[in-house]
Amino acid sequence: MKKIAIVGLGLIGASYAMGLKDKYEIYGVDIDTKALNYAIQNKIISKGSTTLADFIDAVDIIIFSIYPLQILEELKKYRFKENQLVTDVLGVKSFFVYEASKLVKPAVYCSHHPMAGKEKVGIRYADSKIFKGANFLITPTEADSRGIKELEEIAKALEFGRIDIISPSYHDKMIGYTSTLTHAIAVALVNSDSFPDTNNFVGDSYRDLTRIAMINSSLWQELFFKNKENLVNHLDAFVNELEKIRQALATENKDELNSLFKESKAKRLLLEKNLNNLEK
Amino acid sequence: MKKIAIVGLGLIGASYAMGLKDKYEIYGVDIDTKALNYAIQNKIISKGSTTLADFIDAVDIIIFSIYPLQILEELKKYRFKENQLVTDVLGVKSFFVYEASKLVKPAVYCSHHPMAGKEKVGIRYADSKIFKGANFLITPTEADSRGIKELEEIAKALEFGRIDIISPSYHDKMIGYTSTLTHAIAVALVNSDSFPDTNNFVGDSYRDLTRIAMINSSLWQELFFKNKENLVNHLDAFVNELEKIRQALATENKDELNSLFKESKAKRLLLEKNLNNLEK
Repeated sequence: MKKIAIVGLGLIGASYAMGLKDKYEIYGVDIDTKALNYAIQNKIISKGSTTLADFIDAVDIIIFSIYPLQILEELKKYRFKENQLVTDVLGVKSFFVYEASKLVKPAVYCSHHPMAGKEKVGIRYADSKIFKGANFLITPTEADSRGIKELEEIAKALEFGRIDIISPSYHDKMIGYTSTLTHAIAVALVNSDSFPDTNNFVGDSYRDLTRIAMINSSLWQELFFKNKENLVNHLDAFVNELEKIRQALATENKDELNSLFKESKAKRLLLEKNLNNLEK
Repeated sequence: MKKIAIVGLGLIGASYAMGLKDKYEIYGVDIDTKALNYAIQNKIISKGSTTLADFIDAVDIIIFSIYPLQILEELKKYRFKENQLVTDVLGVKSFFVYEASKLVKPAVYCSHHPMAGKEKVGIRYADSKIFKGANFLITPTEADSRGIKELEEIAKALEFGRIDIISPSYHDKMIGYTSTLTHAIAVALVNSDSFPDTNNFVGDSYRDLTRIAMINSSLWQELFFKNKENLVNHLDAFVNELEKIRQALATENKDELNSLFKESKAKRLLLEKNLNNLEK
């Protein structure tokens, strides 16, 4: 049985441990001893420590599930071995993966992104079911295919629905659109609420759209800044589309508004069709 | 048993009929004879006609569930009686309710808005369960309280969760924010997608947020234009908040981004708390 060290037993790290523990031996690392004790008591991990140093020589795979700014600091602390795979679950890639690849030599670094989560943080909300059917993105930086193979095994064990292999920069561009921009919209929409009794006027669509405005500030601040250029471009394109709607309204241009609605309906129907095909 | 004529057997009209038929006798009106036949065959209505003229003298309550631009035209066609209540389910009020009140005299006009729906249209998707626990807004224009009492009975029969009585103009302002703006955002977000394989990068939040971009163009075009001033104001306030995020990014101002996140988190948590209290 291969051994995996998971560094960071938050929502994602602990959910990985829960979903992988039948097929791998799982060692957990967290600076929070309460989280470690919880993980051991609930048999989520077989061993725990506050430092990766205790497991670094014993494990085959190391998964970092910590914040973006911490990751290079952690990688600098250790000497990795040739047969090891080092990976992480971060939602932004380009700013660190090439340096990470150099730092872990002679080990293989192969980054990935599990497209799943919850608004809640911490090990107590961990649940490996959140991965079922979700997208799993692998963003390799080197020709070595070992990393891809190991990650595909992990994705299957966690029951992800679809695996894609893409470049770190394309990852950041697309996640900047579907995830980072979506979070920016939720934050701005909630912050533009200046009314005393909005709750009386809320339907499902507003509630769904704004749920992610209950944002984990520390994590998302890093995800925004580390993907700044993509996010700014996407924001500009989005505001440009809002302007088209505003202009159609201001000029009473019904044909224009109608054609904007037709465009969004056709695009979203196509997306839904593609998503349903993926799920089959 | 009181008799209700429902004019327009689309998703909402037919869902009303399904939820009310045990407590009222329901007559259905629709220009689409297929919808009428379906409603009769499925015992959703007890009688059907392509014109309200056939039922106008027999019913106590008339509910219009048709498009905004059609409603005043319909009201002009008939002579209503003193003991009748006339109402509608439209998502925008100010532009027609005062004129409607005059047109139906000596009957009472009392408008309302059931805050529930689906992306699907038509009688085949009708389901009175969509109203359960949702908000029901009553927007009276005259002092007569008969309309409010009748509508409260209807709301209870349909199992709405909360009933609010507000002015037409406050209704339009708030629905312009929680519903019309939200739809504008979904349309703009989908239309700003210029990528070939977005479906590979979609998580729950993007999927939830954009579902309403599969918009019923004919209906929403009228809802946008008839609530234009509110929508333009809300769009400007929203874009202003997006600009704050963009500015914080461009100037690497972490404190500012953090404080925007904290604001949205606190506001959205409060909203969630208020919504949960309502649901109890």
